[in-house]
Amino acid sequence: MSLYPSLEDMKVDQLATAQYRFESQFNPVALPIANAPSSPPSYALNPTEVPNVGRYGGSLYPELSDYMGLDISPQALAELAPKYAVAIPQPSAVSVPTALSGPLVGMVAPLSGQSLGLQRAQVTNGIRELTLCKDASGKVGVRVQAVNKGVFVCLVTKGSPAAIAGMRFGDQVLQINGTTVAGFSMDQVHSLFRKSPVNGISVVVRDRPFERTVTLHKDSVGHIGFQFKNGKIIGLVKDSSAARNGLLTEHHLLEVNGQNVVGIKDKDITALIDEGGPIITVTVIPSFIYDHIVKKMASSLIKGSMDHSVPDV
Amino acid sequence: MSLYPSLEDMKVDQLATAQYRFESQFNPVALPIANAPSSPPSYALNPTEVPNVGRYGGSLYPELSDYMGLDISPQALAELAPKYAVAIPQPSAVSVPTALSGPLVGMVAPLSGQSLGLQRAQVTNGIRELTLCKDASGKVGVRVQAVNKGVFVCLVTKGSPAAIAGMRFGDQVLQINGTTVAGFSMDQVHSLFRKSPVNGISVVVRDRPFERTVTLHKDSVGHIGFQFKNGKIIGLVKDSSAARNGLLTEHHLLEVNGQNVVGIKDKDITALIDEGGPIITVTVIPSFIYDHIVKKMASSLIKGSMDHSVPDV
Repeated sequence: MSLYPSLEDMKVDQLATAQYRFESQFNPVALPIANAPSSPPSYALNPTEVPNVGRYGGSLYPELSDYMGLDISPQALAELAPKYAVAIPQPSAVSVPTALSGPLVGMVAPLSGQSLGLQRAQVTNGIRELTLCKDASGKVGVRVQAVNKGVFVCLVTKGSPAAIAGMRFGDQVLQINGTTVAGFSMDQVHSLFRKSPVNGISVVVRDRPFERTVTLHKDSVGHIGFQFKNGKIIGLVKDSSAARNGLLTEHHLLEVNGQNVVGIKDKDITALIDEGGPIITVTVIPSFIYDHIVKKMASSLIKGSMDHSVPDV
Repeated sequence: MSLYPSLEDMKVDQLATAQYRFESQFNPVALPIANAPSSPPSYALNPTEVPNVGRYGGSLYPELSDYMGLDISPQALAELAPKYAVAIPQPSAVSVPTALSGPLVGMVAPLSGQSLGLQRAQVTNGIRELTLCKDASGKVGVRVQAVNKGVFVCLVTKGSPAAIAGMRFGDQVLQINGTTVAGFSMDQVHSLFRKSPVNGISVVVRDRPFERTVTLHKDSVGHIGFQFKNGKIIGLVKDSSAARNGLLTEHHLLEVNGQNVVGIKDKDITALIDEGGPIITVTVIPSFIYDHIVKKMASSLIKGSMDHSVPDV
């Protein structure tokens, strides 16, 4: 996982680091943790508790709490602080990544590092094993498409065993019950599923090889800066967060904050983005490959059956 | 970063975990660290130091050190052990990822987790800032190509400031000296570089958005299982590591163990793979996009000028 998922993260971290260096140069003792010269900056949680009268003499910068008349509470600061700076009691909805689990280990992005959408959307390209079963009608609830000798998930049916097990659009199926499926056709794979026992179907998948996420920050009027039509990105707004962070046209939107939006109407996707908070992580795939994956599916099937649940973190 | 970069990693970890559970069921005290039920397995470094006579009565499995007459030294075991089990003094060439740096934080793949090639090849899709200068002939040593309103690096010249700063083929250029370049043409970007000052050219890039890595394990005769021609993967060997791990055809090889191979002859790439140790991490890009990025470059330029140095970890 990268240190900075978005350009805004990098800029804010650079600012914070510069401010820390400047402050510690004048007042190395007042700052709580500065064990080693290479240790990360540690932000005081509550600036009003730090003696700050006449600290710089001429006061080059106003104190953070005075800045533009903002009233910054310790809680708000704690939410904004980078993860390495403080141990904050987390809201229960956000699971704190431990040293041995979760894809966000060691991630310290100052702005978006705590974003739930980013955590949900994480594309690891790693391998995992799912155990599926068949539902009452004998189906596992997954359709696949063969692309370049690989087998890719093109439909996960709402509420099916595959959806419950956490299979996602774009996952590459590697093995089914120990059989390597490289080079198999769609029909061969579907037949393999049909012949499987009702319970304990082991499926090894690689996490969405063609996809990647781009994390965007809304501007003052709530825009992230791209147009899309039928789920395909067709234009970027100049100097928007989308342009700064390198979102590309000729890509399809697959997820918004980790929630699948394949087959959802554009205006409903827009509503999801509007309601998604200040930081939006979109998952995209080149349209060239998207078209290849969905080419044999009726659009009614995609619109009516696709699982659109919000994934657990 | 994912827990398992390769399928082999997952299988080995599952075996080790199963063995640990079986052992601790019979002999919970003899195993050193088992604080919490959810804590990771801890492998004894030197099995001969553990009292093991008549441990299971009937002895369902032979001890590891007796297995097939292998003589397993503590050093060999330490090298094979997963990272979470033991703190091993690392060879100086391998930098140990700390809690706050490096892309491999928290990674515990049992087989390939310590692989230097995997660490070098890591594609984070994250953002970083480089500071470039111009060389004696006034060049930064980078050529770009516009793809889908993005600007991508298509050539990093050997020994140039760009190569020294760590720019790579396929990096997406986001900003040059604070100017967002989304939607710029190749010529506009080259002109921006030409007009830059000689020193302190700040370039913000996103790490290779279209690329991904696949980690492969050589079989007993040293094969990883794919054919390629002019750098393009054209076939997979049935039941090879490449097939198991989901390598795809219609992709171009960009790196072998993190070393750029664009413009290198097929037989020299084969030699790199042969000499690259038991675990090979290849970096690939869909050929559709590769062709788009290199389409305006003479192949002599790619072959003659491309930087092929081994990146620092």
